Amino acid sequence: MSSSNRTFSPQRIQDVASELGIAEEHLEIYGRGKAKVDLAALTDAPRGAGRVVLVSAINPTPAGEGKTTTSVGLAMGLRRLDKRVALCLREPSLGPVFGVKGGGTGGGRATLVPSDDINLHFTGDLHAITTAHNLLSAMIDNACHFGVHCGPKDPLDPRRITWGRALDMNDRALRNVVLGLGRKTDGVPRQDRFDITAASEVMAIVALASSYEDLEQRLGRIVVGTSLGGAPVTAADVGAASAMTALLRDALKPNLVQTAEGGPALVHAGPFANIAHGCSSILATRLGITHADFVVTEGGFGFDLGGEKFLDIKCRAAGIWPRVLVLVATLRALKMHGGAPVKRAAEPDAEALRRGFDHLAKHLETAAFYGLPVVVAINVFPNDTAEELTLVEEALRERNVRMARCEGFARGGEGALDLAEAVAQAAEASDDAPPAPRFAYALSDPLEEKIRKIARVVYGADDVTLSAGAEKDRARLEALGGAELPVCMAKTQLSLTDDPAIHGRPRGFTVNVRELRLSAGAGFVVALTGEMMTMPGLPREPAALRVKLLPDGRIRGLMQNDD
Amino acid sequence: MSSSNRTFSPQRIQDVASELGIAEEHLEIYGRGKAKVDLAALTDAPRGAGRVVLVSAINPTPAGEGKTTTSVGLAMGLRRLDKRVALCLREPSLGPVFGVKGGGTGGGRATLVPSDDINLHFTGDLHAITTAHNLLSAMIDNACHFGVHCGPKDPLDPRRITWGRALDMNDRALRNVVLGLGRKTDGVPRQDRFDITAASEVMAIVALASSYEDLEQRLGRIVVGTSLGGAPVTAADVGAASAMTALLRDALKPNLVQTAEGGPALVHAGPFANIAHGCSSILATRLGITHADFVVTEGGFGFDLGGEKFLDIKCRAAGIWPRVLVLVATLRALKMHGGAPVKRAAEPDAEALRRGFDHLAKHLETAAFYGLPVVVAINVFPNDTAEELTLVEEALRERNVRMARCEGFARGGEGALDLAEAVAQAAEASDDAPPAPRFAYALSDPLEEKIRKIARVVYGADDVTLSAGAEKDRARLEALGGAELPVCMAKTQLSLTDDPAIHGRPRGFTVNVRELRLSAGAGFVVALTGEMMTMPGLPREPAALRVKLLPDGRIRGLMQNDD
Repeated sequence: MSSSNRTFSPQRIQDVASELGIAEEHLEIYGRGKAKVDLAALTDAPRGAGRVVLVSAINPTPAGEGKTTTSVGLAMGLRRLDKRVALCLREPSLGPVFGVKGGGTGGGRATLVPSDDINLHFTGDLHAITTAHNLLSAMIDNACHFGVHCGPKDPLDPRRITWGRALDMNDRALRNVVLGLGRKTDGVPRQDRFDITAASEVMAIVALASSYEDLEQRLGRIVVGTSLGGAPVTAADVGAASAMTALLRDALKPNLVQTAEGGPALVHAGPFANIAHGCSSILATRLGITHADFVVTEGGFGFDLGGEKFLDIKCRAAGIWPRVLVLVATLRALKMHGGAPVKRAAEPDAEALRRGFDHLAKHLETAAFYGLPVVVAINVFPNDTAEELTLVEEALRERNVRMARCEGFARGGEGALDLAEAVAQAAEASDDAPPAPRFAYALSDPLEEKIRKIARVVYGADDVTLSAGAEKDRARLEALGGAELPVCMAKTQLSLTDDPAIHGRPRGFTVNVRELRLSAGAGFVVALTGEMMTMPGLPREPAALRVKLLPDGRIRGLMQNDD
Repeated sequence: MSSSNRTFSPQRIQDVASELGIAEEHLEIYGRGKAKVDLAALTDAPRGAGRVVLVSAINPTPAGEGKTTTSVGLAMGLRRLDKRVALCLREPSLGPVFGVKGGGTGGGRATLVPSDDINLHFTGDLHAITTAHNLLSAMIDNACHFGVHCGPKDPLDPRRITWGRALDMNDRALRNVVLGLGRKTDGVPRQDRFDITAASEVMAIVALASSYEDLEQRLGRIVVGTSLGGAPVTAADVGAASAMTALLRDALKPNLVQTAEGGPALVHAGPFANIAHGCSSILATRLGITHADFVVTEGGFGFDLGGEKFLDIKCRAAGIWPRVLVLVATLRALKMHGGAPVKRAAEPDAEALRRGFDHLAKHLETAAFYGLPVVVAINVFPNDTAEELTLVEEALRERNVRMARCEGFARGGEGALDLAEAVAQAAEASDDAPPAPRFAYALSDPLEEKIRKIARVVYGADDVTLSAGAEKDRARLEALGGAELPVCMAKTQLSLTDDPAIHGRPRGFTVNVRELRLSAGAGFVVALTGEMMTMPGLPREPAALRVKLLPDGRIRGLMQNDD
């Protein structure tokens, strides 16, 4: 545990809610310091200016660059400037918690509270999503087993089922499975896959739904496969959509917790911006917009991934647009992009650092394309040297880039005051003429063209290729009405390309799409690039080996900084 | 929804707790009307006589005979007699909720509140157990994939892994799977199985653990397979036990809810007395014993299954023993045992009813073996005729069996007053000389002999056979130290035999054991008999088809009686 958590006394969650003007009657308490907010609170009259601040980052090292820590720190800093601020973050997934990265609740003095709970089961949203996903899977195999008609359609073709199963776990052995083995009573043998829950279409649907009605309709539109006669079969046809909606009743309600300094944080849905659209829920963001003057939210991993999808998918669906982009950069990530080996990126290396600016510059260009004012947040690590920090600051100043150091990790909100001031200024400057939405592609663009535009505008690629399989997928998806949907790119976060080994600012490259999946309920098409998996694996020494319940009820080993 | 639920206003859960003398500081609120009770409440000085009343039943029809409804009604009735009563029930599993039986929270006016929540995710215990189970599975396959040593032992042999995966879902397609397919990076191909979470050893461990220390030690003792060199490998060897304990921190705390009349109900762990040991947790029972004068608890399905395991496994482990056995019988189940076809068992048939007494008589003999006073509870269904009810009552009176009608379903606690009086009288009568524990077998009996004794004493069988596979299992388990453990029988609930089609009181039969599984952490050996599966399937028309979220937030279709 960090020293801040040892000395910190959390506010009553009711008091945290009242800071946003959310009435106690709209809260359901879920264990100590956690609450769900009833959707009725969304109809409160607007109480704030609702300026959205998008925090994203340059492409990170495998350990992450502290984007969540910076978001928490920034929200703390804005609160210390007496701004009414709502922090809107995605929920952590147990995959990284037990895998490589550890928990997803910030670090040092810039954390969410209660972090142990949030990192583990929290209010059960991910479990509810897993269950809804797998209920649909079980009903699909059950329909095959009994050979029953799916609503008005003829029985499912077991060879053409596209809906997999899900688990909130890094478990590579479940990527490719054969199920239904055994005797006749044990179902129809067929190949299947498990995705991590974050990559489930149900997760995206919860994050994008605007109401219970919308939730049920979206779930019903999920395409699960094809009938023996060739008709697309949906979750509604299988009869699963209503029960799935019931399973998600509480999961659709945003969760309220607090920062280590007692400020409100809405933590709801949407992890994994590399393989999913990876944004926290529209409902939580709306709650923030109506109840706060500043909404600090994240577009996960790099700006090319979570940032792009935040803008082109979530903002487009929600009818919102950010006022400011905060681009988190660290010395070690810049050095990695400047050619330093990842393992040595923490060591001083001014040359690599300078070369790394090229990478940052690409993201600044992309921000300019989207018409977003930028503040670069230099997230300071304990072993960063003053010389190198100054070097980065001077380089940015020369290029006329707004920037501020962020020392939220070491000093909490106090360490983020400069950043908060820069962000508040940039955001308030556009009160009279907020930036207008501009998307990387139009919905009317052909599917391949959408992907090409993202690759060119956001990644800096020359072109896109579709594998033979992806070409077949495209034809099938277009026939199913997928042509008009936005695209959810699944790409490594470690590079602007689809190859995790290529750092810096690559040019002249091609992005390879190997598979397209229709998410008709979420309302997008997933494009899997490179070797990107929708089920991660555990590393040789998983973080789970270090997790332990302590006698006082705290849990050791869940946060990156606590042991 | 039943009329009682439409008009009922629940108590504040804090007031429910204070009825048992549980202080508010020991409660963690989990959504409306649900709380977890801190284990610290177990150290409260004893406040009640703690008389345990075990509710079990004759072997049921596939729809169940209302044992939970009777338990809830009985607790309500005792409360109306001004007894201080704690109801201790197992948590529902989503398998039956979406499968055949529907929810597990009673029916009519004798229900738990909030029933929708309890039937779905409740406080997340089953999800936590599923996750802990599957974290171990993922770490096992990860250890195989990297070929690493397991603690002090050599690497796992992928062909000798006995630990499967788990999901809280009826999903027959997952009974037999091959996983690890794909490329080298996708793990080691091998056969595996999914069990329903209720059948997970982790569920049994949560139900049987006496403290967090005990929990972690039991988890560590789980045997997951064999190393390449032939050594047994445990969850502790794989390094998973501590993280599993952390995942189960909140799941180990008993859940407090209330009956539809506001009385306290501790609902915690342990569904599925056919394939698991199927008892609610020892910690919840202890909490009830120390805080109430009467603890009404269930031994699920038939007395031959949940009842036997309650006595021989749970009572033995916890050092408790019931004062009274309530044996639930219904006209339709008696008629089924008297030879009426299940589908016509609701129709009047005095002859079948009379013949069904033979079946009831076997359970009464078994109760006498265990030294337990019995009250037969005739659970009245709306279409039962007065003539047939009288016929049963007279027959029992002739045989000198204590009995009472229970009309909790139709009339709530008022309808269970006769039963409550009979139970209170029988229980209080032994205040000076409580029945002493007597088990069906001694722990020192050889494994096969334990099974034989259960089969003879409790099922009325002549003998037991072990298949060739079970014989091999036995040799392996004995080498692993399993010889001294109690046995957890997995058997159909529809018959005293291992064949679900055989009703009544069969004689001269043999029980066939086809597989033995070691649960070294739970502390028992599972004996799978007949065709019993540890992963159920959905029926042709699953109950999930009728589940729907209503605009007012209630959920239709979760209870047997609400649509």
